[in-house]
Amino acid sequence: MRLIKNNNNPINEEKIINQIRALSIDMIDIAKSGHPGIALGAAPIMYTLYAKHLRYDVDNPNYFNRDRFILSAGHGSSLLYSTLFMAGIDLEIDDLKRFRQINSKTPGHPELGVTKGVEMTTGPLGQGLATAVGIAIAEAHLEARYNKFSKNLFNFNTYVLCGDGDLEEGISYEACSLAGTLGLNKLIVLYDSNDTQIDSNTDLVFTENIKMRFEACNWNYIKVVDGEDINSISKAIDEAKKATKPTIIEIKTKIGKFSKDEGTNIIHGGPLEKEDITNIKEKLNLRDIPFNVTNDTIEDFQYLITKRCKKISDKFNKKLNRLNDDIKEEIMYLINDNKKIDFKDLIYDEPEEKEESPKVTSGKVLNELVKLNKSIIGGSADVFRATNTIIEKESSFSNKDYNGRNIYFGVREHGMGAILNGLAITGFRPYGSTFLSFSNYLLPAIRMAAMLKLPITYIFTHDSISLGEDGPTHQPVEQLAQLRVIPNLEVFRPCDANEVIGTYKTIMKKENSPAVIALSKNSLPILENTNSNEAEKGGYIVRDNLRKLDGIIISSGEEVHLAIEVANRLNIKGFDIRVVSMPSIERFLSNSKDYIEEILPVGIKKIVIEASSKMSWNEIVFNKKYLITLDTYGKSGKKDDIYKEFGFDVDSLEEKVEKLLK
Amino acid sequence: MRLIKNNNNPINEEKIINQIRALSIDMIDIAKSGHPGIALGAAPIMYTLYAKHLRYDVDNPNYFNRDRFILSAGHGSSLLYSTLFMAGIDLEIDDLKRFRQINSKTPGHPELGVTKGVEMTTGPLGQGLATAVGIAIAEAHLEARYNKFSKNLFNFNTYVLCGDGDLEEGISYEACSLAGTLGLNKLIVLYDSNDTQIDSNTDLVFTENIKMRFEACNWNYIKVVDGEDINSISKAIDEAKKATKPTIIEIKTKIGKFSKDEGTNIIHGGPLEKEDITNIKEKLNLRDIPFNVTNDTIEDFQYLITKRCKKISDKFNKKLNRLNDDIKEEIMYLINDNKKIDFKDLIYDEPEEKEESPKVTSGKVLNELVKLNKSIIGGSADVFRATNTIIEKESSFSNKDYNGRNIYFGVREHGMGAILNGLAITGFRPYGSTFLSFSNYLLPAIRMAAMLKLPITYIFTHDSISLGEDGPTHQPVEQLAQLRVIPNLEVFRPCDANEVIGTYKTIMKKENSPAVIALSKNSLPILENTNSNEAEKGGYIVRDNLRKLDGIIISSGEEVHLAIEVANRLNIKGFDIRVVSMPSIERFLSNSKDYIEEILPVGIKKIVIEASSKMSWNEIVFNKKYLITLDTYGKSGKKDDIYKEFGFDVDSLEEKVEKLLK
Repeated sequence: MRLIKNNNNPINEEKIINQIRALSIDMIDIAKSGHPGIALGAAPIMYTLYAKHLRYDVDNPNYFNRDRFILSAGHGSSLLYSTLFMAGIDLEIDDLKRFRQINSKTPGHPELGVTKGVEMTTGPLGQGLATAVGIAIAEAHLEARYNKFSKNLFNFNTYVLCGDGDLEEGISYEACSLAGTLGLNKLIVLYDSNDTQIDSNTDLVFTENIKMRFEACNWNYIKVVDGEDINSISKAIDEAKKATKPTIIEIKTKIGKFSKDEGTNIIHGGPLEKEDITNIKEKLNLRDIPFNVTNDTIEDFQYLITKRCKKISDKFNKKLNRLNDDIKEEIMYLINDNKKIDFKDLIYDEPEEKEESPKVTSGKVLNELVKLNKSIIGGSADVFRATNTIIEKESSFSNKDYNGRNIYFGVREHGMGAILNGLAITGFRPYGSTFLSFSNYLLPAIRMAAMLKLPITYIFTHDSISLGEDGPTHQPVEQLAQLRVIPNLEVFRPCDANEVIGTYKTIMKKENSPAVIALSKNSLPILENTNSNEAEKGGYIVRDNLRKLDGIIISSGEEVHLAIEVANRLNIKGFDIRVVSMPSIERFLSNSKDYIEEILPVGIKKIVIEASSKMSWNEIVFNKKYLITLDTYGKSGKKDDIYKEFGFDVDSLEEKVEKLLK
Repeated sequence: MRLIKNNNNPINEEKIINQIRALSIDMIDIAKSGHPGIALGAAPIMYTLYAKHLRYDVDNPNYFNRDRFILSAGHGSSLLYSTLFMAGIDLEIDDLKRFRQINSKTPGHPELGVTKGVEMTTGPLGQGLATAVGIAIAEAHLEARYNKFSKNLFNFNTYVLCGDGDLEEGISYEACSLAGTLGLNKLIVLYDSNDTQIDSNTDLVFTENIKMRFEACNWNYIKVVDGEDINSISKAIDEAKKATKPTIIEIKTKIGKFSKDEGTNIIHGGPLEKEDITNIKEKLNLRDIPFNVTNDTIEDFQYLITKRCKKISDKFNKKLNRLNDDIKEEIMYLINDNKKIDFKDLIYDEPEEKEESPKVTSGKVLNELVKLNKSIIGGSADVFRATNTIIEKESSFSNKDYNGRNIYFGVREHGMGAILNGLAITGFRPYGSTFLSFSNYLLPAIRMAAMLKLPITYIFTHDSISLGEDGPTHQPVEQLAQLRVIPNLEVFRPCDANEVIGTYKTIMKKENSPAVIALSKNSLPILENTNSNEAEKGGYIVRDNLRKLDGIIISSGEEVHLAIEVANRLNIKGFDIRVVSMPSIERFLSNSKDYIEEILPVGIKKIVIEASSKMSWNEIVFNKKYLITLDTYGKSGKKDDIYKEFGFDVDSLEEKVEKLLK
């Protein structure tokens, strides 16, 4: 097939592909680092996708109904950047020359927000593909929710380029398994199948029958036997677009195509020898001059893209403007970056007995919150009921009902984490839930959310040894510190219903950035002096001294109640103790010096009580003698027995605090 | 089939199974928590395995060549305990009555070390199955290494009981994919397939064709359509034992069999109503009395086990005693708990130029170490070369060569973590490697290793923003703190070749408990004042003041070199600065007060320099003004540019330190 432009000039597709290859290896050469293997091997795939399929408005790269492309094999960044440059998206030739240099538009791995046309930060393998599943869920939900108001308003495809490494990671398996069950047919994965990975050929470590594996997971599988054959690649994508299931197209390529090390794992990472570059460029029929591009090649490529995609963003905007204001407003919220949600009208049904498990309050708040803002969507890794995160009046998101706002992730915490990221970068304000102990399972995805400041709320219940009988595997100890230390991630541990409400208020007010809510499973009194507004400060007084100030107990979550009881008991013995509830250490420390010293005056003894690692608290109290914390694993047993075992029963605490104050 | 005992009494198999069921629900009832669903549904599977297949010496439960059984669905602990009790392993009826009570032998989830017969702590789903792959690798390696000296010395099977949740987790997919590639045919997975999970039926979240999925991964698949049919279950296990691949037996069961809520997700967790218990026991043909067991039932069960397994441990010990002393000693090391390795004779080939990347030193040490002790085995999650963890003189562990000591895990960090746990509980002293940033991926497995104090060494290279061009996804920031906070896990960050050697010495000296070695990828000078013996103290002086003491800089890893340069520069300006290298904060703080105050005298200004979260260091220096640390994500670029960007270039550090000391 020979493509002809309007002006009757034939388009030399091979030259465009080879130009992408040559630019990629020039970038790696000048940067003295990078990954030429995938760039040489998968360039025809990238060309085919961008020239013939990806619906993309080069002048409006952020137009909302664009097809998404995620380079899950993020180490192939040079390939993506050279393609984007050739396509006329954001990058100039000088940007390519600054590949992997500080503050360039072409960092070592693709970074969302740094380069237009890059849809997701990738590099940690598997994450990109799993995130794409989240985007495809978002798309399916948008279609179900809004296309009834305007035909085909949303109908974008999500494309992924992945390698063997991506498919070996459990996170991608988890997400793909769910994608198959959900029948997300707008998800199209291009699998750069080259039988090679960093350490070896795949036969030593990865001998799966990919067709069977994906068909077992309810995917559509297509094979392209020759990765140089762009017509077959294109036909496969056409077929994938018609499928009723997600599709994986296995494309057999040669890693490092045209290099002397073609087809070996040596070519995966690192710059090529000069001689090899010369040799490759000769085979590519290109002049051996770095960053040499002919304008007609660029024009040809851009012509192919523009011809297909002209005015698609205008069309979308017109459709949008024809919608009624309510619907339009909902959609504009998704499109806009500011994810702040104001929270005045919330109805909270306080229990008469003034006692409630924080996770129950959380469930109530969440159920109200979803009414206020349609961008909130989420689910659980198979602990909906235990975490109280189900939305009672909404249906389940399933292949029969993409309108559902309750996503059943299955026992797939890591996949859930990446899917939440995909939902967030598609405009939603998602939440996900599991037990705090299992937050470890999704930590790499939380890190990504934190890096990208995505407005995701993680609801982690069963937040200490107080969960009881399930024992040490389920009892978090170090998890709070592990989360608190993550940059850009705020961790809240409210102590009662008032603080739970305050925590949600605080989180929803933020324009972006992820947050964790750690919640006790146990029923706890709703305190008189807690306050939904004070939680925003991160720490405040919940029991004050009456005459003098003998000491301060700082605590969070369930342990605040223990602290108050200790203070009350010691009051009888003549000690006047202030109790500070500190749902967020980080937020408390971000207050003015005056406020901090008002709450925690200098010169007064301060004692921390939290059934969690002391590491979190060293910033508040230096002398570890005053940290009544927990740095060993828990035990299975009744809550009271466990508390006693680890010295968190009120008697033991009273004794310890009294001794410290004497 | 009717089983007949020697004394011609028929054995009532159904009664044994029902007794196991009844005990399980009685345990849950008395504990008021637990998981009756799996106990009622999977009891016939457990019976069949223990009565007819598991080679197990009841009197010597730790005999080394025993078959292993891992309850991956750890929430089914009551089922395991009641089976162990009936089998006469460790537990008495009173232990069952103390189910889920503190310090009992029957905690909420099975715990290794607490109950004999429990081979692994399970509960976090997927971990058990993935650990079993590690055990099967260990077994294959033992066979390859030692059976040439004594026929069939090692030949144990590893059995797993898992549920849907286990199979949904990415970690089990990763490990099973590798198990298939490696052809671990002594691994037999019994899959309790009941179409139900906590939140829903599986059709909403998990609709895989398990046969295809596992066959795609080079497994043998057998289906048993009726989970009550113990003959079919037994036949399937027989068939599995003959297979040349790992086998999964999908056994269709009814969750909560005989309960009024049979077959629904309601029955998964929580005690049953009294009426339901009565009703179930009626169907089971048992008296409605809690913990009522007839002795003949117990005897029958034990007879079946003993008949098969009599003297198997004697036979093994005889074979062992016939081996020559060297081989026997190697094996005894595996069998014994004390994993201490003395480290005197290590050859280290110091480079002439007195400069080496810590990861290169690590590679040299590791290559010597494996010669000293045969229990050291390990590998990499596809970054063997980048982490310098390959053993040059050993082969690759593959389905063609189980003798290999280089395990190619593939890009499967989490699977690697669990497999290391499996190797460790089978007597080895394993190590695994990836980049420090990706330590997040295997954190749940590290937690398990820490909980069980397994002697595993994690070699995590590329340990700071100094890795350069790969950018923020690959640059660890919070990871060191996230690891340092884990109970029982020691984290070392040596600054040069001497400290790397010292770190290995220190770690190998420990009888148990896991450790992390964080290593820079960059070439670094070998310092005159570092010392392989001092590293054991966790912190010591590497540059001292000459006249007075104006201040102390505390640092670790690569940044120690920056600290020394700053001190040298400021020396010219008249400041006399001590530099303390602190490869392990935790270990330093465990020294005597005298030592700590000798190194860090009270009243002297102390400044920390580490390109990592400040949270780790608050315990050393309270005033955050003195913490020159990093709490934001990195950037892609050249190392020097990145250091400058984040204020870790020597000029910026000098300025900051000077200001702080003035």
